[in-house]
Amino acid sequence: MEEAPMLFIPGPTYVPEEVARAQARPMIGHRSREFTALFERLIPRLQAIFRTRGRVFFVAASGTGLWEAAIRNLVRRKVLCLINGAFGERWHQVALANGKEAVALSVAWGQAIRPEQVVEALSAHPDAEAITVVHNETSTGVMNPLAEIATAVRQAFPDVLILVDAVSSLGGAPLETDAWGLDFVLTSSQKCLALPPGLAFCAVSERAMEKAKEVPHRGYYFDLLTMARYADRGETPATPAISLLFAADRQFDHILKEGLEARWERHRRMAERVQAWASERFALFAEDGHRSWTLTCVSNTRGIDISALNEFLRRRGKVISSGYGPLKGKTFRIAHMGEIQLHHIEALLTDIDEWLAAK
Amino acid sequence: MEEAPMLFIPGPTYVPEEVARAQARPMIGHRSREFTALFERLIPRLQAIFRTRGRVFFVAASGTGLWEAAIRNLVRRKVLCLINGAFGERWHQVALANGKEAVALSVAWGQAIRPEQVVEALSAHPDAEAITVVHNETSTGVMNPLAEIATAVRQAFPDVLILVDAVSSLGGAPLETDAWGLDFVLTSSQKCLALPPGLAFCAVSERAMEKAKEVPHRGYYFDLLTMARYADRGETPATPAISLLFAADRQFDHILKEGLEARWERHRRMAERVQAWASERFALFAEDGHRSWTLTCVSNTRGIDISALNEFLRRRGKVISSGYGPLKGKTFRIAHMGEIQLHHIEALLTDIDEWLAAK
Repeated sequence: MEEAPMLFIPGPTYVPEEVARAQARPMIGHRSREFTALFERLIPRLQAIFRTRGRVFFVAASGTGLWEAAIRNLVRRKVLCLINGAFGERWHQVALANGKEAVALSVAWGQAIRPEQVVEALSAHPDAEAITVVHNETSTGVMNPLAEIATAVRQAFPDVLILVDAVSSLGGAPLETDAWGLDFVLTSSQKCLALPPGLAFCAVSERAMEKAKEVPHRGYYFDLLTMARYADRGETPATPAISLLFAADRQFDHILKEGLEARWERHRRMAERVQAWASERFALFAEDGHRSWTLTCVSNTRGIDISALNEFLRRRGKVISSGYGPLKGKTFRIAHMGEIQLHHIEALLTDIDEWLAAK
Repeated sequence: MEEAPMLFIPGPTYVPEEVARAQARPMIGHRSREFTALFERLIPRLQAIFRTRGRVFFVAASGTGLWEAAIRNLVRRKVLCLINGAFGERWHQVALANGKEAVALSVAWGQAIRPEQVVEALSAHPDAEAITVVHNETSTGVMNPLAEIATAVRQAFPDVLILVDAVSSLGGAPLETDAWGLDFVLTSSQKCLALPPGLAFCAVSERAMEKAKEVPHRGYYFDLLTMARYADRGETPATPAISLLFAADRQFDHILKEGLEARWERHRRMAERVQAWASERFALFAEDGHRSWTLTCVSNTRGIDISALNEFLRRRGKVISSGYGPLKGKTFRIAHMGEIQLHHIEALLTDIDEWLAAK
């Protein structure tokens, strides 16, 4: 088998060896004292990472599963989906696939969504019960102004729930569940948290838990009320992904030891470095002022062969991402996410410069 | 931390060290050549384990998630749920929670469901589109006569889909997806396959895939048609649980090297041994002729303190299960599942005998 390259892709991200090895701990039962002890170690640290004193849950699934959870639990009839990239679009599709009336507020890819646009869209759809918003659009490198959007919505439409995809931001950029008044924030293990994929995490406000009680046909696997009932005794409804939780147990310690603010700042500095590098050589796809802290989407203004670049990088034990969907060939993406450090980024950029110079 | 005991519980089961260690392999991207190679190694071996030439899928979830998949994809309006234990009951709940009309055929716990009972129930509900049946009821130690039920249903009601929970049987007892004409068979990683929890697997017949096309609001995360579209290019719709798949890659080799028939036979011999032991000292909860090959449910005819027994066993580095739900105190359960060997069982029974003798 080929040696796995160092990942500069927007997830799965590099998993530190000691975290990966934690998965190999001897298996335990999920209705055991060992499991409940693990559960009780995980919850407060998850709350710290989500910046909430409210409910947090984990489930064996990808973040996509929790998109479905948000829709099935918290939307009875109608939702407004904010779209400025592929992931916002897919969440909208998930809402439709679950039989909800899902109206879209679409903004050009590469642009951020403005609070006033959201308020305007809600004014046109005053019966929307919730909005979905992707904090950090992995397809475009735009980080939406979530705090400002949330403030505007809570002021103008205080009953509308704010459902947030923080898949590629939580742990890598500021996000304050309680202080910003967010109702449902979901993330995946394999992005800024630098865990193996297969776990999804969410924070849920008290009013969202109340809302779920009014929504019929929430299903079972992602039913928040069932999760809460089991959580109250330190368990999960279904068998959880225990070996992945062993890894989380190890990694959450590391994250909180680094410090959440320090972790955000490390991501910001990496973003600044990659943006400066890319501005000099190419151009940045995301609009100024709304660029992601966790990945940079570079416009391929020089028309380079991105596959050839990646083949070269692979020989150096590294890999970056090509553009997403319609942006394939037109952009490439460098993720600076999770446990990636500035020196990894420097080494990557040096390699790319060497390839560019040889062309 | 307390040392993890050897698990004689019906999942999660003991994971061999080399399988557990496989999880620690360096992370790879899920849209990469490495992943597609892994995908293409996994699928034919999954087909071999399910005994099918049809579609097989894996998803980051527990088996519970695939209960929901079966209902949301394959039942438009009405389903008949066969119930003779806690898991049959829960699958029925899942069907109701997803807004379907779910009628129940209930049989006393400890009894098996007869083919003629199923035919009779379907005669009373000729508009049922599918039946759900739990092959091996982990709560009671009953293994339902699945082949006979399937034959009877396909003869009398050829259009009814047969949806099977093989969570605690697949890999430990005979199950022939194609030969028995089963339409949807689901299992979990952490039972007879002896993998860490967090992965669920299913086999889907061609006519079930066709049926899914007629069912609206299938959702997204568990949508079989979306899974099939991605599978055709060696990928999954959402990020899969890659480290768990590394473990499956290792363990499927081991399972097929042991040989599926040999594996079934090892489980049968362990069941025979535990049943003989339990019959002499207690009684068996499951009716004769329908006892599980993968776990034995023992009636607590001596009124022993099961918690005290388990505390004693823990000091010997072992743990068994108490009775499930309403059977707590009245039964205890010994799982002989996955990588457990006859010599492990002998050592366990010797320990229990020592405890019984000292009372």
